[in-house]
This record gives sequence, structure tokens and C-alpha cells, in this order.
Amino acid sequence: MSKKRQIRLGTMIHGPAGNMSAWRHPEAVIDASINFNYLLTTALKAEEGKLDFIFIADGLYINEKSIPHFLNRFEPITALSALAALTSHIGLVGTVSTSYSDPYTVARQFASLDHLSQGRAGWNVVTSPLEGSAKNYSREKHPEHALRYRIADEYLQVVKGLWDSWEEDAFVRNRKTGQFFEPSKMHALNHKGEFFQVAGPLNIGRTPQGRPIIFQAGASSDGKQLAASHADAIFSQNDSLESAQAFYQGVKSQLSQFNRTEDELHIFQGVSVIIGKDAADVEKQYQQTAELVSIKDALNYLGRYFDHHDFSQYPLDEPFPELGEIGQNSFRATTDLIKAQAKERGLTLRQVALEAATPRPLFSGTPNDVAQGLLHWLDNGAADGFIIQGGTPNTFSKFVDTVIPILQAEGRYRLDYPGQTLRDSLGLKVPENQFTQNVELTSLEVSI
Amino acid sequence: MSKKRQIRLGTMIHGPAGNMSAWRHPEAVIDASINFNYLLTTALKAEEGKLDFIFIADGLYINEKSIPHFLNRFEPITALSALAALTSHIGLVGTVSTSYSDPYTVARQFASLDHLSQGRAGWNVVTSPLEGSAKNYSREKHPEHALRYRIADEYLQVVKGLWDSWEEDAFVRNRKTGQFFEPSKMHALNHKGEFFQVAGPLNIGRTPQGRPIIFQAGASSDGKQLAASHADAIFSQNDSLESAQAFYQGVKSQLSQFNRTEDELHIFQGVSVIIGKDAADVEKQYQQTAELVSIKDALNYLGRYFDHHDFSQYPLDEPFPELGEIGQNSFRATTDLIKAQAKERGLTLRQVALEAATPRPLFSGTPNDVAQGLLHWLDNGAADGFIIQGGTPNTFSKFVDTVIPILQAEGRYRLDYPGQTLRDSLGLKVPENQFTQNVELTSLEVSI
Repeated sequence: MSKKRQIRLGTMIHGPAGNMSAWRHPEAVIDASINFNYLLTTALKAEEGKLDFIFIADGLYINEKSIPHFLNRFEPITALSALAALTSHIGLVGTVSTSYSDPYTVARQFASLDHLSQGRAGWNVVTSPLEGSAKNYSREKHPEHALRYRIADEYLQVVKGLWDSWEEDAFVRNRKTGQFFEPSKMHALNHKGEFFQVAGPLNIGRTPQGRPIIFQAGASSDGKQLAASHADAIFSQNDSLESAQAFYQGVKSQLSQFNRTEDELHIFQGVSVIIGKDAADVEKQYQQTAELVSIKDALNYLGRYFDHHDFSQYPLDEPFPELGEIGQNSFRATTDLIKAQAKERGLTLRQVALEAATPRPLFSGTPNDVAQGLLHWLDNGAADGFIIQGGTPNTFSKFVDTVIPILQAEGRYRLDYPGQTLRDSLGLKVPENQFTQNVELTSLEVSI
Repeated sequence: MSKKRQIRLGTMIHGPAGNMSAWRHPEAVIDASINFNYLLTTALKAEEGKLDFIFIADGLYINEKSIPHFLNRFEPITALSALAALTSHIGLVGTVSTSYSDPYTVARQFASLDHLSQGRAGWNVVTSPLEGSAKNYSREKHPEHALRYRIADEYLQVVKGLWDSWEEDAFVRNRKTGQFFEPSKMHALNHKGEFFQVAGPLNIGRTPQGRPIIFQAGASSDGKQLAASHADAIFSQNDSLESAQAFYQGVKSQLSQFNRTEDELHIFQGVSVIIGKDAADVEKQYQQTAELVSIKDALNYLGRYFDHHDFSQYPLDEPFPELGEIGQNSFRATTDLIKAQAKERGLTLRQVALEAATPRPLFSGTPNDVAQGLLHWLDNGAADGFIIQGGTPNTFSKFVDTVIPILQAEGRYRLDYPGQTLRDSLGLKVPENQFTQNVELTSLEVSI
């Protein structure tokens, strides 16, 4: 083997890292989710660490029981656009829902971000798990799971088609002749599908990355299929090596049916990390963050997965209640697991709520422990890379300062960015424009 | 009078200034509409001139006959967010249509921009004049004029309501007690109207300006009424002192019916400017820019107002053709004027097309001529301020360097920004939160 397999890294930015109550931590930026300086500091630290990207999640519904940093947060596209102006190489990935937006607008905004950032835009495609989203978007009800994914599939075909509206060299801008563009290199999409009718062309040229990077984060079978057919990267969250391996293999094996190869879709595992001098130091840091979560907050946190079910009605220290059909919603994979674990391990409601709200880090220990842990997953078919989520507010900064140098010293992580764009960082090819392909236009079939 | 009436100023940023073909000008940044450095340079120049704001227009439909800088342009919200990061005082105003967007998303994006920019966001509310927009948004047809304005009125009620979701001091963030927010200061909107049902609350706190500044740009009677009831500022484009005075008086007189005073709505006139040593120099600059427009381009430009009607089918040097009902669309005020002028003055098609595509500047001459011209309009009830549109690519920079110092020397223009926010610059008060008003909640009536 001429070169050891390289690790890929990104990080999440939301509120203070750790858990829902980490804003109370003495080292936390208390208003992190709405503090641009916090976002910028984190993005610059990520760039110092030569990370592939920062990742901003999103949601479209809140109520009084929501996680604090969801109540008052920047909208991702605006935040990423502002960060684009003050960073130079870090990828800028943000969540936008295909269930509550228009493909022409979303295609434009990400294309515009890609131009503004000179090729660093990434879109995390979600279909919105929260039922309440419908209430903010004049809808009678939230579309059910399978329907949301059918909409998302067509939506992505439309957006990709719009991103190909202009060939790369369409704008000739000949001062002398007055020719601004070459008409044969402008392509109307004329999409007429089940959910969308979009004529195009988009009013912005092909972007520095050809098109922005597409992330997908759903773990359901519909989600995996959407990722296998459309995505450049997946944000998965498996809590053991075995489940990560199963997920990894499951997705990679689907790629061939879409005429794609395994290296065209990177699987990132979102992992929480705590770094310490030794196990006792890690435990102390974990406890210091975990104890910030009150049982009331933990019950709200748990309730979010169960349609904001009110868990305060049950005794805390008796066995986890029978919930029947409650939780058979978009979070079902999670709620089924919670119910099964509670039964199997004989947990009380208090134990279930605190375990959910104050999870232990997946990787912890000394910087070397963490580095070797990540490499173990990488080398055993569980991930192509990781999205680092700090287990305490200052973990990410420590990660860049102490873990990355180890990965670099072992030849498993780059010393500098390989190019200008996020696509360059991820080692992904610029996709061909669908209107210039000579082969069958499979991606256009829906509109024929 | 203790203080002379102060002039207010903003500027447009789009492609190279002058006319549709100004990109061919030797001094033009040839790819200005998609060149972030051009936007930034212009914004910083505006800030050097202590202007109130920059203004980015928008549109949602293009075809091969569109104006060159409309074909390949930044999306306004992303561009303004990026500019927010690199400027400190200039207001950031952008166009978004209420006919093709969702109020929850638009409320969030402008609120987020307001937070990111520390209080400099402005939204130019339009209803989209271009019929073709429907084709990019899965709609069978473009809503007609009156309907668009009814939608816009309700849309603005929803957005303003969402911006009041949180009282200014709602986020108490008490580390010790674990209280993140004060529940009584969180307000769900529960709007149920004719066009929108939006529960809220918005997932971002009240913004530095209380709420972003609202611009309105439609000149129809529906547009004026929308402005009188909702807007903080109007972008008008009248081509004579008399028509500007009539417009100004017409709008200001409507304010009382909405319980508003005349100083709560600023009327900006969009005016084109050329600055020269003398009249001959101005004429030379005008001709140099005007001659860049080919007759073919001018016919396309004219056609845009007439639903992209193909004017190349008519003889160029015969009287302007009879068009019957062609042009009875959203641009009707303009198309009726063109038809009437052509008949009255006996113009040929060539003359009409070139006059439309290469308009002469409204204010021109030496820096002092321009300064006095603007003050004359200001002092004669035609405007509260102006949105400067350069008649050549380098006019705006000259305007800041030469006209503004004259206005300052005469005590008619500020020497520095009065505060941090666009609202401060405009001398507008932070609006009261509708949920904390003790008086009748007129703005909530629709949802009762």
C-alpha cells in the first residue's frame, strides 16, 4: 500500500458542545447559538485543523420544551454566507429541508453560497422529522415518511438540473462583439414531475464546485437509498463499531445500483469526544457536563423524540412506562431502541431520560486514545471520516490542538488543504453537466 | 429652523452601473453581478460615504432575452450575509418576493441577517412582476396583481408577528438556576388567515433593530397602500420633480389612516447620476455608455416589459407599432407610458427602444450641480432621500468622493453614523413588540 488510508474530519457547530444544558458550563459561550463570534472562532479553529467542513444543523419548529440552543439560533444559509467572507478553505455545510422549501430558491441560495465562498458550499438534505413543522408552513399535516422521501428524490433531481443550467464557459462576455453568453450553453430544465414543475434556467452560473456538495443524514432505508442515489456524503450517528460497520456496508453496497462507485460517497460518523489526561480526568469532565442537565430538562429532551410527550406525569424511579403507539413517528428508529433498551436492561424513567440527555462520549481518553479509536473505526469499515462533536464546550479546540497532530504524525491526515474547494478536500470529482453528457440522460428521465 | 433638513442616501448594487450593456464599458468590472469583490468594494465605498444602505434587487425568472446581469447574479440574502461580515455600519437591503416564498423562512433569514450584522438588515418586499416566475415555482399561473398584494399584506402581518415571538429580554440564561428563557416572554403567533396558517414562535430571538427595516418598491395604488400600512421606506422611481412630488404627497397622505406619522415612512427616489467637469463632459460620458447598447439588446430590453414580446418583427424606423392588449401586465404603468409617449411624440420603434434602454441621467453636471439638484427635490417635497444609481460604471465612486463632501459642507448630510443600526441611520424608532402592547392589538385582528 503506497499511502495509508486518510481520515476525513468535519465538526458540528450549534450551541455550546456537550449536551442540551452545556450553556451552563463555566467554559461555555453562554449564547453560542446566536453569537457570530463563537461561530467564527469555531470555523477558524476548524480551518486551523485543516478540517473538511463545519456543519450547521437546523429545525423548523420549536416550543417551550425545545432544547435551549434550538430556541434562538442563526438560520444556516445566512450564517454560512457570513462565515464564507471570513474563512478561506473550510467547507460550509448547512441543513435545509426539502419538505418545506422551494427547489428554485434553495438551488439559488446554495449556488450563491458556492460562488461567494469560492467553492465551499455543502447542503445537508433533510426531510424534517418534526411533525410541528407543518404548523409553521400553512400545511394541514406533516407529510408521512415515505412521501417526504419521494418528494426529496424529485427535489434533488430538480436542484441538480438547475445547477446545470449554464455550462461552465457559457458566459463569454466579449466586450467587442457585445456577446454576453453563448446561447447553446444555457439550458432550461423544463422539469414536469409529480411534485414539481420547474422551467429554469437558474439565474446563476455553474458554481466553482460544478455543484455544491450534497450531504444526507437520514438513517432509514428511504434515507439510505436517497443518499446512495444522490449524496456525496452521509452524516450517520451509530453508537457502536458493529452498528457503524453494518450501516457503512449497507449504504456502500447500494451504490452500484445507481452506477456509482464506493469512493463517490463518503460516510461520516458523528462522534462525541472527551479528551483528558487519563480516565479519571475524562470522567470528571463528563460528570461536570452531565450534572448540568436537570431531570426536568432530561424529560423534555426525551419527550422530543415522542412528539413532545409529557413524561413528567410518570414516577421517575419506577420502570420506564409502557407507551404503546407513542413514538411511532419520524424518530421511530430511536424510540424503538429506547423502549427496547429500557425493557432489556430494566431501566427506570429517570435512568432512560438521563442516559438520553447526557450520553457518554463514544471516544475518550488521552489524545492518542482518541486518535487510535478513530483510526480503528476507519480501518475496520465503519467510516470514511468523522464529524467531531465535543463532549464538553472546550473539547473541539483541544481536539485540533492535540489529536490532529498525532494523526498527522502517523501520516493519516493531511498537513494542508489539497485545493480551494470542499470538493477538492473531499477528493470528489466535479460532476459532468447533465446537458453535455453523451450517454443516456438517466437523471432526466422523470421529465420526459 | 434649528437644523437644515438632512438628506438620506442609499445605492443600488447590481451589475456594472449605467445600462444593460455597461459590462462592455472599459471601466466596468465585467462580471460585476457575480463578483463578490465588486460587491464588497461598492459596499465599503458606500460605508466610506456614510450612506444609509446598499440595495440588492432581485428577480425569479430569466430567459435568453433577459438583461445580462440578471442571468448570473448572487442571490440577495446570501450576498448580504457575506457583506455583513466585512462591513460595520452600512445597511444591507435585499429584495425577496412574497409571492414565491414562505413567511417562516423569510422571517428567519432576515432576522438572522439582522443578528449577524448587528442590526443592519432591510427587506425590500416585492410581489414579483414577472409572469414567468410561476414556471419556476410549480404554479399553474402567476397570481394577478390585486391578489398578490392581498397575499403580501397578510404575509407581512405574519412576518412581523413572528419577529415579535420573543421579547427582547426573554433569554435570561441563568447558569445557576438553569433557566434559559422566561416562558411568559415567548409568544406563539397562532396566525390563521386567508393565505397563511403559522403557529410560531420563530426560532430566533428579537433582533437588534427590534425587527428588520421594511422597504417597498411598487408604485401601483395597491403598492402604495401596502407601503403606507407596513413599510419603513419606499424605493420609488419618478422621472420628474412633478411626478415625484405627486407620488410623495400621495403616499404620505395615506399614513394617517394607519395611525402613522409622516416621519415613520421615508420615501427614497431612485435616481441616475452622471458627474462631469461640465455639460460636454457629461454628454461624452453618457454617449460612451449609451452606445454600448445594440439595437437588438434594446429591443430585448423593451420586450421585457411586454411579456418578452418579440419587437424584432417590426421595422425599426417606422412609427412604434400598435400593440393592442400586449403589455397589460404587471408593468402596465410603464407600458402605458411608453405607448402614450410614442404616440404623442411620434417616435419610431428604434427611438422608443433606445430611449428605454439608455435613459439619460436624472441628475447630472458638476458635483455641485448634482448636490443642488438633489437638495432641490428634497426641499420641494419630492423625496426624503435618494437611491443613487450611477449613469456610468464609475459614477458612484465619484459621487462619494465629490458630491457627499459638498452636502456635508452645507450641513445637509451627516459626518458620521449616528449609531450602530440601519434603524439608527434612518432615525426610526424600534417598534414595540405587539405582544406587550397594552393598547388594542389591531395588527392581530386577522388571527382572532
